[in-house]
Amino acid sequence: MKICRFIHDGVINNGVVKDDFVFLLKDSKNLLQIQRNFSRASYLKKSEVIFLPPVKPSKIVCVGRNYAEHAAELGNEIPKEPVLFLKAPTSIITQGDEIIIPKQSNQVEHEGELAVVIGRECKNLTEKDNPYDFVLGYICLNDVTARDLQHKDVQFTRAKSFDTFCPVGLFIETELDVSDLRVTTKVNNVIKQDGKTSQMVFSVPFLIRYISNQMTLRIGDIITTGTPSGVSKLNDGDVCEVEIEGIGIVK
Amino acid sequence: MKICRFIHDGVINNGVVKDDFVFLLKDSKNLLQIQRNFSRASYLKKSEVIFLPPVKPSKIVCVGRNYAEHAAELGNEIPKEPVLFLKAPTSIITQGDEIIIPKQSNQVEHEGELAVVIGRECKNLTEKDNPYDFVLGYICLNDVTARDLQHKDVQFTRAKSFDTFCPVGLFIETELDVSDLRVTTKVNNVIKQDGKTSQMVFSVPFLIRYISNQMTLRIGDIITTGTPSGVSKLNDGDVCEVEIEGIGIVK
Repeated sequence: MKICRFIHDGVINNGVVKDDFVFLLKDSKNLLQIQRNFSRASYLKKSEVIFLPPVKPSKIVCVGRNYAEHAAELGNEIPKEPVLFLKAPTSIITQGDEIIIPKQSNQVEHEGELAVVIGRECKNLTEKDNPYDFVLGYICLNDVTARDLQHKDVQFTRAKSFDTFCPVGLFIETELDVSDLRVTTKVNNVIKQDGKTSQMVFSVPFLIRYISNQMTLRIGDIITTGTPSGVSKLNDGDVCEVEIEGIGIVK
Repeated sequence: MKICRFIHDGVINNGVVKDDFVFLLKDSKNLLQIQRNFSRASYLKKSEVIFLPPVKPSKIVCVGRNYAEHAAELGNEIPKEPVLFLKAPTSIITQGDEIIIPKQSNQVEHEGELAVVIGRECKNLTEKDNPYDFVLGYICLNDVTARDLQHKDVQFTRAKSFDTFCPVGLFIETELDVSDLRVTTKVNNVIKQDGKTSQMVFSVPFLIRYISNQMTLRIGDIITTGTPSGVSKLNDGDVCEVEIEGIGIVK
């Protein structure tokens, strides 16, 4: 199922996308109950709505250096524990919006990533808990990074948090085995990054459990799981697409 | 004026505190319009309400090493530009709530700070803009930090983002000259930190303008402005109080 968020007649709603239609979700507050509320009674044509980023997270938790080859290309070792940082929620945009290159940076780069959307509040998960029980679904995400500022600042926050630095796909895919998906990033139709989620240093369930032990994850929060090797500079006018097998594209 | 947020009869509202009373704010969505809506017609006794943290920020932007002596005590140089990082919003608690020492850390420390609450969305402020026009008010904040994890992780995120690691005062003080206020932190009634906001490396208006050029600041967002020297370890059962002249105490 593909979940979206959209504006129609000035009202923001969640919906489920199928073919050319968007089916309204009546009570969209509890995203995990969406399937129960999914009703064909009320729908719109896709062309009648304006799609928004599919989720409004209270936080975006990012995992650095989670693919060995990407850690190596930036001269870093493979971490023993996940490297966590936060991206400002104000950085989110979606399909069709433009990444704005800020004047502070001369080296803005793409980082195509698989991202997890939390569907149920989770805290201190143990080995007995199944992390997938807390997942609503998955999105494509571009963890856009001002590489020069990242090196200069040491703290990743500013380099990762400029407005427009977090393009996410339009749809949250709820049914998917994410253990071995292809993640590609193209710039002007040339493949730059091409990895598989099976190459992650720390797997999706490991990350959910680990992060839930550092901070409570709320419904709608995003965990983005790191990028494969091949990051490169974006210039004004470039078209950058992140594609994840089974989810789709964000460009 | 002291603005608060509270629960009464299961409903969350904003209010203005005066003496023993809380005056309800009718339309509390636009916090900068609060003064206009402030009405004595509707009020409750303080004892009838449960106070909540006075604000629900979409992000908490923190400034590291903003007092020269604190930078020095941790072996760091005075930064040429503000050191920015984010604290997870899930870390917020308020007066009377307990800081929980996580099992991951053996060195949890207090950092008493003056924090700014944004009252009007701001982006790319220039020298012509007056940063104070975008301020709703000020709160006391304790930027609790797992010092051992901060050193180990390099990225400050995890060390600063555990649940309960952001105690804030109950009230947002809206009328205050913050250029030279005393900021003290006591542990078990012994003064550990004792600074003046005039000692900041980067002033409050500078920080608001600077950060607005890195990321859009939304209504309710918090900027916390760094801590004076004297940070020390907190142990189970300690009582830690941050006091700022003109604002009050959080403990």
